[in-house]
Amino acid sequence: MFTTDAHPTGRHFLQIPGPSPVPDRILRAMSLPTIDHRGPEFGRLGLKVLADMKAIFKTRHPVMIYPGSGTGAWEAALVNVLSPGDHVLMYETGHFAFLWNQLATRLGLKTEVLGLPGAEGWRHGVHADRIEQRLKADSAHSIKAVCVVHNETSTGVTSDIAAVRRAIDAAKHPALLLVDTISGLAGADYRHDEWGVDVSISGSQKGLMLPPGIGFNALSPKAIEASAKATMPRAYWGWAEMIEMNKTGYWPSTPNTNLLYGLSEACDMLLADGLERVFARHQRWAAGVRAAVQAWGLPIQCADPAVYSPILTGVMTPEGVDADAVRKLIYERFDCSLGTGLGKVKGRMFRIGHLGDSNDLTLVATVAGCEMGLKLAGVRLAGSGVQAVMDHFSAHPGGLLQGTPAAKEKAQPAMA
Amino acid sequence: MFTTDAHPTGRHFLQIPGPSPVPDRILRAMSLPTIDHRGPEFGRLGLKVLADMKAIFKTRHPVMIYPGSGTGAWEAALVNVLSPGDHVLMYETGHFAFLWNQLATRLGLKTEVLGLPGAEGWRHGVHADRIEQRLKADSAHSIKAVCVVHNETSTGVTSDIAAVRRAIDAAKHPALLLVDTISGLAGADYRHDEWGVDVSISGSQKGLMLPPGIGFNALSPKAIEASAKATMPRAYWGWAEMIEMNKTGYWPSTPNTNLLYGLSEACDMLLADGLERVFARHQRWAAGVRAAVQAWGLPIQCADPAVYSPILTGVMTPEGVDADAVRKLIYERFDCSLGTGLGKVKGRMFRIGHLGDSNDLTLVATVAGCEMGLKLAGVRLAGSGVQAVMDHFSAHPGGLLQGTPAAKEKAQPAMA
Amino acid sequence: MFTTDAHPTGRHFLQIPGPSPVPDRILRAMSLPTIDHRGPEFGRLGLKVLADMKAIFKTRHPVMIYPGSGTGAWEAALVNVLSPGDHVLMYETGHFAFLWNQLATRLGLKTEVLGLPGAEGWRHGVHADRIEQRLKADSAHSIKAVCVVHNETSTGVTSDIAAVRRAIDAAKHPALLLVDTISGLAGADYRHDEWGVDVSISGSQKGLMLPPGIGFNALSPKAIEASAKATMPRAYWGWAEMIEMNKTGYWPSTPNTNLLYGLSEACDMLLADGLERVFARHQRWAAGVRAAVQAWGLPIQCADPAVYSPILTGVMTPEGVDADAVRKLIYERFDCSLGTGLGKVKGRMFRIGHLGDSNDLTLVATVAGCEMGLKLAGVRLAGSGVQAVMDHFSAHPGGLLQGTPAAKEKAQPAMA
Amino acid sequence: MFTTDAHPTGRHFLQIPGPSPVPDRILRAMSLPTIDHRGPEFGRLGLKVLADMKAIFKTRHPVMIYPGSGTGAWEAALVNVLSPGDHVLMYETGHFAFLWNQLATRLGLKTEVLGLPGAEGWRHGVHADRIEQRLKADSAHSIKAVCVVHNETSTGVTSDIAAVRRAIDAAKHPALLLVDTISGLAGADYRHDEWGVDVSISGSQKGLMLPPGIGFNALSPKAIEASAKATMPRAYWGWAEMIEMNKTGYWPSTPNTNLLYGLSEACDMLLADGLERVFARHQRWAAGVRAAVQAWGLPIQCADPAVYSPILTGVMTPEGVDADAVRKLIYERFDCSLGTGLGKVKGRMFRIGHLGDSNDLTLVATVAGCEMGLKLAGVRLAGSGVQAVMDHFSAHPGGLLQGTPAAKEKAQPAMA
Repeated sequence: MFTTDAHPTGRHFLQIPGPSPVPDRILRAMSLPTIDHRGPEFGRLGLKVLADMKAIFKTRHPVMIYPGSGTGAWEAALVNVLSPGDHVLMYETGHFAFLWNQLATRLGLKTEVLGLPGAEGWRHGVHADRIEQRLKADSAHSIKAVCVVHNETSTGVTSDIAAVRRAIDAAKHPALLLVDTISGLAGADYRHDEWGVDVSISGSQKGLMLPPGIGFNALSPKAIEASAKATMPRAYWGWAEMIEMNKTGYWPSTPNTNLLYGLSEACDMLLADGLERVFARHQRWAAGVRAAVQAWGLPIQCADPAVYSPILTGVMTPEGVDADAVRKLIYERFDCSLGTGLGKVKGRMFRIGHLGDSNDLTLVATVAGCEMGLKLAGVRLAGSGVQAVMDHFSAHPGGLLQGTPAAKEKAQPAMA
Repeated sequence: MFTTDAHPTGRHFLQIPGPSPVPDRILRAMSLPTIDHRGPEFGRLGLKVLADMKAIFKTRHPVMIYPGSGTGAWEAALVNVLSPGDHVLMYETGHFAFLWNQLATRLGLKTEVLGLPGAEGWRHGVHADRIEQRLKADSAHSIKAVCVVHNETSTGVTSDIAAVRRAIDAAKHPALLLVDTISGLAGADYRHDEWGVDVSISGSQKGLMLPPGIGFNALSPKAIEASAKATMPRAYWGWAEMIEMNKTGYWPSTPNTNLLYGLSEACDMLLADGLERVFARHQRWAAGVRAAVQAWGLPIQCADPAVYSPILTGVMTPEGVDADAVRKLIYERFDCSLGTGLGKVKGRMFRIGHLGDSNDLTLVATVAGCEMGLKLAGVRLAGSGVQAVMDHFSAHPGGLLQGTPAAKEKAQPAMA
Repeated sequence: MFTTDAHPTGRHFLQIPGPSPVPDRILRAMSLPTIDHRGPEFGRLGLKVLADMKAIFKTRHPVMIYPGSGTGAWEAALVNVLSPGDHVLMYETGHFAFLWNQLATRLGLKTEVLGLPGAEGWRHGVHADRIEQRLKADSAHSIKAVCVVHNETSTGVTSDIAAVRRAIDAAKHPALLLVDTISGLAGADYRHDEWGVDVSISGSQKGLMLPPGIGFNALSPKAIEASAKATMPRAYWGWAEMIEMNKTGYWPSTPNTNLLYGLSEACDMLLADGLERVFARHQRWAAGVRAAVQAWGLPIQCADPAVYSPILTGVMTPEGVDADAVRKLIYERFDCSLGTGLGKVKGRMFRIGHLGDSNDLTLVATVAGCEMGLKLAGVRLAGSGVQAVMDHFSAHPGGLLQGTPAAKEKAQPAMA
Repeated sequence: MFTTDAHPTGRHFLQIPGPSPVPDRILRAMSLPTIDHRGPEFGRLGLKVLADMKAIFKTRHPVMIYPGSGTGAWEAALVNVLSPGDHVLMYETGHFAFLWNQLATRLGLKTEVLGLPGAEGWRHGVHADRIEQRLKADSAHSIKAVCVVHNETSTGVTSDIAAVRRAIDAAKHPALLLVDTISGLAGADYRHDEWGVDVSISGSQKGLMLPPGIGFNALSPKAIEASAKATMPRAYWGWAEMIEMNKTGYWPSTPNTNLLYGLSEACDMLLADGLERVFARHQRWAAGVRAAVQAWGLPIQCADPAVYSPILTGVMTPEGVDADAVRKLIYERFDCSLGTGLGKVKGRMFRIGHLGDSNDLTLVATVAGCEMGLKLAGVRLAGSGVQAVMDHFSAHPGGLLQGTPAAKEKAQPAMA
């Protein structure tokens, strides 16, 4: 058996911004025996997860569930609504926006990139006014779609999607709005219908607390309509047949049954808890971790407090300190995995994931791992981040156990 | 939790030709904690499964491992080696060959179908001489690829791939040979390199004994060369970046970690056992099940004994008997899932899977479930299939326990 | 890792009369993280399983749950209600009654054994009239307890416990009634309160479908009263402190938490299904297996049809045939474990378990394994047992899937 | 299914001094299918775990493995070597020594208790000179056994067993030495043979990292000899039959198979790592946690640094602070379970477990949970315990990942 023997004792701290730690409850659900994907039981499972995912995306319209990764779901969104050579406006907030652009280009689309220049550009969210301005200039309506990333996993910036919608509307432009919420969904507030998103793209391995292996598209009626006319070659990712067969809980080709068991369990957990509580929990964790980074005196990668991510926090290391060497030291000494700096910011920052199946003490431990590692690497810190995160969590109750007297008091989400 | 509560007690008999029953050992392996797909441990896992899959395909060349289904792997094969509008020769042996053709057409390829006409056509394997003849006629070499299905899951026919290779060579034709061995791999003899296959396509949920969710492409140098010139739009399925990153055990986008744990375990099981033993085991099971069908006096769907499948057996029901009604009765009364007749043969036959993690008593039980169900449905049977399969297994030792005196004698695979 | 590598492929058929196959659902429940046995969550678990086990034993009085085996629970029953040298009447129906007597003797009790002589004696149930007669003769009331085995695992005889109660009452004798229902509980009809049992003894690894490791005592008020005066040394097994602490869901010493998770799940399964359905299911299976043995022309170990066990069937092999050699052959060739002949009947019979998490096809397969093995061992059989069990199950619906139209018809338990 | 729903998100911190957290690897091993405890596979498992446990106890003599708890193993030790009314010398180091005495008394033994008086008495280990003195005074050799606790779970004191052995030898007294190492084994240094222990008693749920449910006795030849003459009634716990049957890997009554799977896995983990590394790891953790308690300015329950426990640390709360109210607050706010004060010290202290499957960050988190809880409860602390434990772990490498460059340097166990 392949074993994770690198970890000599105790539990690894998987604090990357996804895959996030998979709860035992979900791992157990995934170990149910595989069933006939054409049998009656499967239809019940299919209908359940399709309905649950509508609740998670906050949509009344169809959600596509693919065996695949988030990258596959990016491709699915594009090939269903666009035609070869179509002009697409993409906003680069970080490395994943960059990669999505690269993928669109490979598929033969003509992409145009907005965004602030240089590494500094990756410290901000989408500036919706730039989109509005660009669309207004496109009086011929040659732009067919606007693509933005909701929660930029590479930086820790959560852009304001409702503002992007308003920008498109203000420009009276017919472009479709495609949003990558791969790392945002089920951790950060997200509203497919209310925000007027046409295709929302997501994956299983972040807020949904599953292993990787499922990609999602949530659709709007306008997107479905567009797909009827779009001419990009497509088969595996094609929506039409899937929408039809999903009505009875089945798929055109073989779905990934055991991950769907896990998805069903994840949705049970999230929906029983309530998405608003889930979002508040992430906001509170994020505030605690940021308090620690600020106490260290290190810059947060996201330069704009209005768009701090509730999912992850990017930490910039001082000039001359190789962030990856620090990460490696923390991994080897304290059995804690952190996210690397990607693309333009490689070696200049690391990322702390605070999403999914986590809690206060796990995050205090993570901050402690970072603090010990930074010090061992010779980084001079202004103060104790561990003290700061403890102070934050102590001052802001929120992670109370169910059924306890304290839990009955209203939880006060703390976002500062 | 979603539960499989339809099954009131005991273990369901999942006797469809895939997904096949997943061994507990693999389900347990899949429940290892998810790790960082960019961390050092993951690289070791990646290198291991990539090497193991070469041994399974019997190739020295790269194997692509995708989060996706077999259908996705069909698409991957086509979009990597072909250009829009390319002419492709496909041989229709059954419903899955038909579906692959449909997918190719959707992707904008110009397909030409060979095969015998009507439902009777689905009772035979690939006639390699027809391919040879057709390719010889294509003196302009307009045909870019020949697509055949190795083990046709809808009928129980295992075509002779080496013969197809010889046919292409005899025609001196440069077309690529693309082979779907989704349900054949790791159950029926398969030799990617020796048979000169250019792209072999497979999936996880059959002979590999995993849940669905992984698609495979095994490549030849000629296929890799072709992919450099092919112009079908591709990104998610693109080989080039994957071949490059796989060298160190990583993937361009997020791989489905927990299924890879399972894949590693499955390969350990299959390779420790030895593929020749695995193939012999399937042949012996198939011979036993066919003995039962013959004792019932019912026709086997595959009309040509030379290409009987070791993986599944199609059973034709007498005129006037709805095969699906029989299947439903067997499912409801005896908790046993069988494969339905697909496409042209819907309602006219059912399929018994005898693949993967199975053994003699499980197959005797399956035959018994079929026999009881057929009788309860009013079908008159010529004789006892259960007696026939018992006689076959008794007369042909083969499923011996390891470490026992009997197991030390040479197992004699019996192929009837 | 220790692996069960003897089994090369497929699922082992564990058809001994306990431990019975543990459903995946229970194995999964047992893998919940271990919790603090003094914490608030544990108290809820404790109260739940204590209440559930009352329903299983059909009692309103306390049930003791021990980390231990059934043998430990035998000891617990004796040391709580008896004093050194006490006179105990034991009825020998088979090897387990014999072993219980041996244990009582080792503990310093004065045992007196009733029962028919010789190996033939082990083919019958308890003759309650002999107990009545003996108790009437004991005018001094020197006999303190009557010990009988409900379902004799070594023979397949299920004695009539209500008749034993009536016998004691008819004799107007104050002796306590102690009943071993280790292999009977949750498979055969059992009613602690209604039948006036003073201490019922059971274990986890039979009808409860759990791994071994829990022993049970169900008590009557009279037994509790007796325990206050009894003077056998006792500590670990002592009821008093346990009764007290169990009121809030806790135990005096460390309970075996993860098996209790499994117990909770098993009780959920059994009580949701309904004990009467569970009992009818076992009766139907037993009738099918007996039909097979009768078709073979081999004697059933239990000579009295009125007390045939619904849990297991003993099969006597012809003179000169070593039953253990047959068992070994079946194990090695067909991966099926059967029970050995114990004590007086060693080598003369084998036992087929048909209990717990089983179903029709599993039992047909088991009968097929026996039939093939007997024939390979050279035993001449009168007819086809497999045909007989198939005919029985076909003629008597009963194992219907839930939620199907057929399941809505009333199941007709068939007991002959 | 019973669920641990009290924990809304993330992983519970189970920091009681046992049951300790069970590694996933062991939970997975425990979910192997239950096998026939009389079949050939089981014999291999039995021989393996019996041999492994000799290595863990560091003995060449038989080890008894019982389905039962540590309490059962206490009883087993006493009833095998003693006779009714025997005089036993017990040393009270804390609540578990007190409970063992209570159990011995219930079994009818005449116990005599040594130890320092009052709650202060529970802050020290065994004073071997007092034992020597007492035994020298027993010139009639009426004392049959000396009972001491190795690692007192209620206080965090690890007594010097070798010194007790020397004391008995110095007194030239034939009394047997019985040692409870329930919470010491596989975490603290222990040497059954070298220290001349006659019966070592242990359980599964501490250093062995298993769920509760197994009790152990390790024997000496002298103990086995004594058991032949001892007359306490015994059956379930009787060594003689077990020693005999264990020779081939089997047990007289049904062993708890699935926990034995877990035991096999635990032994694989511990022995592959090496017991000396395991002990050093615990010493290092304990030193870190004590550094934190000292930084808080709170007294450690163990008043003698020479016998600080590597397994747990008792923390005394200031006069007027209810330790249990603090524990409850930590549990409800930070999802962390701590040990309560038992018996004489109830409400006056709490216990932090640092044993088994743990690591640096987990312990930093635990200290953080305590520190936040103490502060929220209004306890004034002298300084930051979290800083102290971080400083300790940073200054003393030791928990390095395998296969990393750093791990190849010699780990330096740090014991303060």
